[in-house]
Amino acid sequence: MRISELARRTAVPVGTVKYYLREGLLPAGEATSATQAQYGEAHVERLGLIRALLGTGGLSIVRARAVLAAVDDPATSVHDALGAAHRALPAALGDDLPDLTHARAHLRRWGWHVQDQSPALVSLASALDALQAAGFDTPEPLLDRYARAAGELGEQDVAEVPTNSVADAARYVVIGTVLLEPVLLSLRRLAQEDASSHRFAASRS
Amino acid sequence: MRISELARRTAVPVGTVKYYLREGLLPAGEATSATQAQYGEAHVERLGLIRALLGTGGLSIVRARAVLAAVDDPATSVHDALGAAHRALPAALGDDLPDLTHARAHLRRWGWHVQDQSPALVSLASALDALQAAGFDTPEPLLDRYARAAGELGEQDVAEVPTNSVADAARYVVIGTVLLEPVLLSLRRLAQEDASSHRFAASRS
Repeated sequence: MRISELARRTAVPVGTVKYYLREGLLPAGEATSATQAQYGEAHVERLGLIRALLGTGGLSIVRARAVLAAVDDPATSVHDALGAAHRALPAALGDDLPDLTHARAHLRRWGWHVQDQSPALVSLASALDALQAAGFDTPEPLLDRYARAAGELGEQDVAEVPTNSVADAARYVVIGTVLLEPVLLSLRRLAQEDASSHRFAASRS
Repeated sequence: MRISELARRTAVPVGTVKYYLREGLLPAGEATSATQAQYGEAHVERLGLIRALLGTGGLSIVRARAVLAAVDDPATSVHDALGAAHRALPAALGDDLPDLTHARAHLRRWGWHVQDQSPALVSLASALDALQAAGFDTPEPLLDRYARAAGELGEQDVAEVPTNSVADAARYVVIGTVLLEPVLLSLRRLAQEDASSHRFAASRS
């Protein structure tokens, strides 16, 4: 199909499709003349992925490119693809690397093994610092409860990674990591709202 | 203390403290002359909260102001404070309101009661749309698993809200909602990394 048809099928404006081509997020079509190219179903699918990463995923163009590169690299192991997805995720970090001592001590308590300077470990330490700065107490039982819930999800997430092809596995890991996060946060807020309506609301609407 | 001492105590530059005063995030100090004011421990604590909301919380000035207003309002019920926190949270939304039919059907299955157009419900629907656009299958068992984990957390979050004063309760709800989200996401990523290192990594470092 031509670029105009690709744009129509995906509801993405032609100018935006061209922008993704220039930025290297969308692979070039097959050239049929000096000014025209043909696009296929793979381009339709890829555009869906790009929109999801940039929209709900909240990734910048640069980070989305890194995630897509990990998905595309046939030599990527599943473990490497997971690392690429984690590195690409927006992390709310200050300018300074936080002290990782407390976060590491929690992980030891849970028996979790991660890289020494894992991006997620840095995020955790920053988040715990922010809670402390805000005067919010995070006792061990609270953190243990969050770790138990997250641990069950993470374990099962990894167990469900398809193993028939490395490319499929990498794709699953990257998309599942980035795009299930907003699902998890939305569900926690909804569960809070439900629990709060039972406990605190004068009347239920 | 003077503003210079407040800045030193909190490691926030004087110019930034003045900016927070102008933006109405930090209450004015007690004027001691036409150009000077005195600040107290409440200001130190408030600055920690502001930095946490703007930094790790990822809130804009406008959203942080709305959250702080909910915390400050003595008439705020805990349920209302939770709603204010949810509305203030950054939501990755497109321009159009998503179709809420599927998301509502899931909530009915779980027996959760929330407002018709709850911000978290809109976020959930958007996130599910994005997964579908990316070609990522989210079967019911997967969503049920996430809902179970989120449900346990949300229920317990609400159960731990202090009930001695409405102001304390509102503060707890708002901070806990906004600042525990990065903790949860970091923990899920760490759990994935741990599980992936067991299952996929050639060697553990």
